[in-house]
Amino acid sequence: MTSISQHISKQFDNDLENIRSQVLAMGGLVEQQLTGSITALIESDLEIAENVIKSEFNVNRFEVSIDEECTRILAKRQPAAVDLRLIMAVIKTITDLERIGDEAEKIARMAVRLSEKNAPKAYYIGLKAMGNLVNHMVHDALDAFARMDSRAALSVASKEPTSDDQYVAILRQLITYMMEDPRNITSSMDVIWSARAMERIGDHARNICEYVIYFVEGKDVRHISIEEMEKEVNS
Amino acid sequence: MTSISQHISKQFDNDLENIRSQVLAMGGLVEQQLTGSITALIESDLEIAENVIKSEFNVNRFEVSIDEECTRILAKRQPAAVDLRLIMAVIKTITDLERIGDEAEKIARMAVRLSEKNAPKAYYIGLKAMGNLVNHMVHDALDAFARMDSRAALSVASKEPTSDDQYVAILRQLITYMMEDPRNITSSMDVIWSARAMERIGDHARNICEYVIYFVEGKDVRHISIEEMEKEVNS
Repeated sequence: MTSISQHISKQFDNDLENIRSQVLAMGGLVEQQLTGSITALIESDLEIAENVIKSEFNVNRFEVSIDEECTRILAKRQPAAVDLRLIMAVIKTITDLERIGDEAEKIARMAVRLSEKNAPKAYYIGLKAMGNLVNHMVHDALDAFARMDSRAALSVASKEPTSDDQYVAILRQLITYMMEDPRNITSSMDVIWSARAMERIGDHARNICEYVIYFVEGKDVRHISIEEMEKEVNS
Repeated sequence: MTSISQHISKQFDNDLENIRSQVLAMGGLVEQQLTGSITALIESDLEIAENVIKSEFNVNRFEVSIDEECTRILAKRQPAAVDLRLIMAVIKTITDLERIGDEAEKIARMAVRLSEKNAPKAYYIGLKAMGNLVNHMVHDALDAFARMDSRAALSVASKEPTSDDQYVAILRQLITYMMEDPRNITSSMDVIWSARAMERIGDHARNICEYVIYFVEGKDVRHISIEEMEKEVNS
């Protein structure tokens, strides 16, 4: 009996390990999409933009198959405690990863539209810094997930207000351009949509960090301030 | 033994019934938020707007407590098949409900800002129709959830492209206003943000319908066209 239960437990561990690596593979793809979309936007690279747009369905496929696998594990293995928390964290993480993929696709579409409009270089300055920030946030959130490191997760989550500030600054700047000359309005709007997508991506990265903290600490830290989150992680 | 297992099964049914009614209570609150935010916007009613903004934390509380209850049921009752699908559908539905609440809050904040700017009545015409549409979509999605009716869910989901069209029309109209007179830019932007929030709400209503179809039909219908969805529901 012991060897059978060890065997089952080994299979279970394999299942969980497999799901973890699936999430990381999905995360890798999403990160690639995001990096691509930002490069496409800043450098007006249409080829990269098209690649990002074309491969979005791969992200969707990951979401559906990981969800299926989670349901299968819940039904067959009936996980409890920390194993159940892992499954819960995975179910939520992949939703946010899929939405990051969606936002990256939007940025890639804006890259295409903006390249046709020949928008002045000044429009992209804020976007470059913000793209860089959210790109790092997503990378580090996935890294925190890979290592299930709640302190690293907290550190990423605490950068979200900075991305909000950058978003507001870009918005103000672009509204100024629109006011100066109505001919700037349509390209300014595309810049604003790109910044908005980046701001959403920052939110999703923070969400992923909250699931990591939930997994590690067993505490739901959504809808609380960064200060309260710090207390939970350090307690 | 039979009476004990009946007793356990009865408790389990109660658990599931309880969770279903919790989701409907959360849905009722979110619907109220949404209706309030649209009224606040169209009628520049600051009192209603403030109420929507103030009660957003109640929606968050629902999300956290229903999630906790789902985890508890997964650990203690180890549901399978249709019961497990219900839990999965609930976990996903409440995420979308919470985001509808977020978007309603954004609309309420725009209502406050727009009321200070005295935007012309013409700005609100598209918003009124679109608000009405997404309000109905959310109501009907919750109704489909309450009755676990996949045909009703399909019917709601098929309205999402209409809300997208309305959004694009509002965007075009408001960009015209901005081009006519730069003094219209900031209030036009607030109208655009409101329309954007409504468009997101339409997406979330569609997501909820997809979970209803998943529960009833046992098929994941995300990331497919309405036509493919129809085939799944009618097969």
